[in-house]
Amino acid sequence: VTVQTPAERRRARVREELMTSALRRFERDGYDRTTIAQIANDANMSTRSFFRYFADKEEVLFPDNEALISATERLLSASIAAGHTPWDAVFAGLEAVAVEMEQSRARLQVRRRVIESNAALSGRQQVKYLEWQRRIRGRLDEDGVPEHVGHLVVAIGFGVWREAYRRWLDGAETDDAAPGHALVDHLHDVRHELIGLISPTPT
Amino acid sequence: VTVQTPAERRRARVREELMTSALRRFERDGYDRTTIAQIANDANMSTRSFFRYFADKEEVLFPDNEALISATERLLSASIAAGHTPWDAVFAGLEAVAVEMEQSRARLQVRRRVIESNAALSGRQQVKYLEWQRRIRGRLDEDGVPEHVGHLVVAIGFGVWREAYRRWLDGAETDDAAPGHALVDHLHDVRHELIGLISPTPT
Repeated sequence: VTVQTPAERRRARVREELMTSALRRFERDGYDRTTIAQIANDANMSTRSFFRYFADKEEVLFPDNEALISATERLLSASIAAGHTPWDAVFAGLEAVAVEMEQSRARLQVRRRVIESNAALSGRQQVKYLEWQRRIRGRLDEDGVPEHVGHLVVAIGFGVWREAYRRWLDGAETDDAAPGHALVDHLHDVRHELIGLISPTPT
Repeated sequence: VTVQTPAERRRARVREELMTSALRRFERDGYDRTTIAQIANDANMSTRSFFRYFADKEEVLFPDNEALISATERLLSASIAAGHTPWDAVFAGLEAVAVEMEQSRARLQVRRRVIESNAALSGRQQVKYLEWQRRIRGRLDEDGVPEHVGHLVVAIGFGVWREAYRRWLDGAETDDAAPGHALVDHLHDVRHELIGLISPTPT
């Protein structure tokens, strides 16, 4: 999404390594029982160094994604300015987020298992989703999309996202979900299916 | 939804009174700072009596709705058995829930403010929504609806519900939302708008 300096790239790589080793611990020992000292130790790092990369244990599961949110907001505005419908604009935003995540499927599968096994983490994730939705709605509002339209397309966009994300992490669950079916492909499938499912049946 | 005995009716009325007085406290003093002793006292009741109606403070905000969920499940199955599409069946379920809530708008407005001012409660509410969705998906699955269809119609139904519920609690936000516009009317509005919003634009 954005051009990174060598220092930023290194930092991003270390963060990913820490996330990967922390997730392994969370899955094996449970999130609540895992300490930051253990996570740091697994990555051959001091506890003090850990805090150069993450503010706390929770941030390892829910890393700051301000850069991605901002980029998505800019894309939304460009799409609306180009005359696309609010739904097309939101969908373009979802596609961009999907592209960013394509390489992280294995890690995100473990992350999902960890979050789903812990009610507090499930709640935290849902609150994160609500924050994302609020940001996107705010941007649509600034771009002149009527409030009730913005709310609805964001809520539905989120529903489409959730289902595409689920299928992607689950692997082959529908006929055409070959292994390697990308998240962005699932997004398109779900969008297409949705139109068929909710269209009034001929009477 | 179900026929109540006089004792059940009385119990339901006391629970509603406790909810109303607890919500007043939560809004004024904050959820975390309110004690069960205060809630009971406001309702001229002992702390011990409070526990005959609710297991804990949280249950006042998130009361058990097993009866409503079960009734919704039965309605879903009847709708599928009658040959309706999964989307029509889910929508019928949402309508039934809406009808149950129509009389509680003022209380639900206070409840929303309390929940939204507290991150932990927001998370708790989202987890409740996920539990509802899991139940409904489970029932659709038993009724022979393919898994990926069930997931999608429930996710979209939830998006439609959320937006209709928001409009209903907000009051007049769209042109046709006259004061007294019922939740079930908002549901129909949102369902209708959704079709227009996501339909492919002619090229």
